[in-house]
Amino acid sequence: MSQKNYLFSGDFISAQPEPGELSVHENSYAWVRDGILIDITSEKPDTGEDVVEVDCRGKLIIPAFTDIHLHAVQYVTTGLGYDRELLSWLTEYTFPEEARFAEPAYAERVFRDLVRDLWSVGSLHSSVFCSMNADAAIQLTEALAAAGLSAFVGKVNMDRHGGVNLEETTEGSMADTIRFLERMIPFENRGIRPIVTPRFAPSCSKELMRWLGEQVSEKDLPVQSHVNENKEEIEWVRQLFPESGNYLSVYRDYGLLPKQKTVMAHCVYNTEEEVSMMKELDVLAAHCPASNANIASGIMPASQLIDKGIRIGLGSDIGGGNRLFLGFHMALAMKESRLLWVQTDRASRVISFAEAFWMGTAAGGSFFGKTGAFLPGYSFDALVIDDSHLSRYRPLNVCERLQRFIFAGDDRQIEARYLRGERLPDPRAVVK
Amino acid sequence: MSQKNYLFSGDFISAQPEPGELSVHENSYAWVRDGILIDITSEKPDTGEDVVEVDCRGKLIIPAFTDIHLHAVQYVTTGLGYDRELLSWLTEYTFPEEARFAEPAYAERVFRDLVRDLWSVGSLHSSVFCSMNADAAIQLTEALAAAGLSAFVGKVNMDRHGGVNLEETTEGSMADTIRFLERMIPFENRGIRPIVTPRFAPSCSKELMRWLGEQVSEKDLPVQSHVNENKEEIEWVRQLFPESGNYLSVYRDYGLLPKQKTVMAHCVYNTEEEVSMMKELDVLAAHCPASNANIASGIMPASQLIDKGIRIGLGSDIGGGNRLFLGFHMALAMKESRLLWVQTDRASRVISFAEAFWMGTAAGGSFFGKTGAFLPGYSFDALVIDDSHLSRYRPLNVCERLQRFIFAGDDRQIEARYLRGERLPDPRAVVK
Repeated sequence: MSQKNYLFSGDFISAQPEPGELSVHENSYAWVRDGILIDITSEKPDTGEDVVEVDCRGKLIIPAFTDIHLHAVQYVTTGLGYDRELLSWLTEYTFPEEARFAEPAYAERVFRDLVRDLWSVGSLHSSVFCSMNADAAIQLTEALAAAGLSAFVGKVNMDRHGGVNLEETTEGSMADTIRFLERMIPFENRGIRPIVTPRFAPSCSKELMRWLGEQVSEKDLPVQSHVNENKEEIEWVRQLFPESGNYLSVYRDYGLLPKQKTVMAHCVYNTEEEVSMMKELDVLAAHCPASNANIASGIMPASQLIDKGIRIGLGSDIGGGNRLFLGFHMALAMKESRLLWVQTDRASRVISFAEAFWMGTAAGGSFFGKTGAFLPGYSFDALVIDDSHLSRYRPLNVCERLQRFIFAGDDRQIEARYLRGERLPDPRAVVK
Repeated sequence: MSQKNYLFSGDFISAQPEPGELSVHENSYAWVRDGILIDITSEKPDTGEDVVEVDCRGKLIIPAFTDIHLHAVQYVTTGLGYDRELLSWLTEYTFPEEARFAEPAYAERVFRDLVRDLWSVGSLHSSVFCSMNADAAIQLTEALAAAGLSAFVGKVNMDRHGGVNLEETTEGSMADTIRFLERMIPFENRGIRPIVTPRFAPSCSKELMRWLGEQVSEKDLPVQSHVNENKEEIEWVRQLFPESGNYLSVYRDYGLLPKQKTVMAHCVYNTEEEVSMMKELDVLAAHCPASNANIASGIMPASQLIDKGIRIGLGSDIGGGNRLFLGFHMALAMKESRLLWVQTDRASRVISFAEAFWMGTAAGGSFFGKTGAFLPGYSFDALVIDDSHLSRYRPLNVCERLQRFIFAGDDRQIEARYLRGERLPDPRAVVK
């Protein structure tokens, strides 16, 4: 590929790798070479003659969103069964639907639409649970790759408690995992990587957990799973794994908490010991505020985790969560933090807008390398937001315009999406 | 107007006037004469020859939404200032913005857009706080009438605690109210009615409150205001009105709780005494789940109020709430009910989907007469939802399709809007 040299102009706003204030560069220039941000400057830089200018003046340019936790095979049932809690919701709504993904034609239709919608809402990075079916996981990977998106994809492992149509044998789960990992190799240079995905501790036998942990260690693989989502679930885990001190320790005890390479969804009821373990191993917490409310799990104490140095990404958690647009989840994370604060007699601080935005961009993005913030050396993964309709009445500063977009806007304001400096076309328009 | 005779065909789903199960008529016919529903039948009725058939087969037909509480003059600041609580949010963000509506050109631009967006999201009935400026309230009324929407509009009364640019004299407030009421008369047969609107108890002197109560009594007017939103606010009211037993009693003591004709927004912290008073006077509670979370007020105990026989409508509460689409607020009402349930150790039941839908249609609609449900004799106020995109993967029943629309859809699926049997065109296309 020949060297690509771009100069973007517009109003840039971004979180930093650490939670805190947002960084604003109004009416500025971002010089991007070979997909990497050289710098953002208020004066037009000397870029050389081969530069392509991308004029986004008057528009917001923000880091692309990272959806750090969602279930591709639940996209169809999003919005259904929210009169249940986790365990009965899984067995009555989720597992029967997931079993349908053994049918390739069905899987392809759903994945094509999901990928298009991920593109539409600007979630250019995502970490996705597929089904236990290795072929379906490859189909999802193909759809993501065709759209040019960046993702971790997990073939779900579950050799127990899945019900009639959604359970593997232990040996079958191992064999399919090996097959999945091999078939994923060609996609790595297209930005789609495999991630070891034990569904959650109750879904995996100890033999399978141990084997998965060995794969993680041997092949240096990342891991995603669920922890401390629901009180009933936590009690079940305690009964199934009495020898582990707590829920998170189960994963650690089987080698499934690789340092800086683990995403753990929910973390609603983490104990202090578990929070310390997360800090020590730099586990990324996936905050899923929509799902945690829809199926009555509870509120993650996000500000407390941040103050203890935990990185927190945001997950749409489709289909426990009900929308893909991460702005909705940033706003909901703020809402829930406020409700927790007022209901616990103001025992902890509320998260700021900047922190909610950090979760869905810089913090989640950190799982994918140098992305999610506008810093020199970072991948230029960005959304161009035409917020003129939302901000047309009177002058607003850049941060206020971003708040208007996050709280009152949606994918209709996202005008363009860039990954590694290149514009991603609408996947519907791409011929595979 | 000549007699209009319509026959709608499609998949009808509606709440009943009382909370409970939804009523479904799949693949059925609604016969509507002069804007009134004659009946819904599974067999095609004998309507006579002059009937106009409206073919919506395969689509959902639901009652139009009622947004029972919003502030027109806060539409511009929606999404801003959510790091505050009520009282500082009012003085720092809301009041300065409201003062701008003394400028007619500014008011007209904002109201035109708000009305277009209310139409777009299907909130064909609404009860709106305008500003204290009577001319602005008339401008808003004109914009609503031009779009053919149904509404209660309130000129806000506030003769104290409004700050530098947003305070009336007591006499000025009275004179402007009289002028407002007179100028509203021509709009009544166009479906826009005035509503007495003391902003909230702290904003009105006792003299003004008493005078407003007299107007209510003499002219048989409805009332809207706020009650028990925020703990600090409640304490302030207690200090300002020590002679009233509680916050709601303040309104009663000044004649501002006309029976069956009052909407009270928030009701987060109602005492048992206040709940009994609401029941006795059939006060409609306006549940505003987005606003109550955004500015850290708390969670309304909705299921408890329903179980005590209180009608509860849904308010977007723009700009404390951040979106107009009532489906978002139905979903959020369910979310917050679940969070309250889990955080209070399951002390009360959660609200059902049917109850959330009832709030935003039948319950809120009851404030406007016979609307909000598909019953013989009711005004046919309806939305046609093309949910084919949301429900395209496998057969779903009508209630599941509605859940998909409410949780995962938005105004993009609303294909047509009918008020009193007549289709409402896009207000942008209407020449005034």
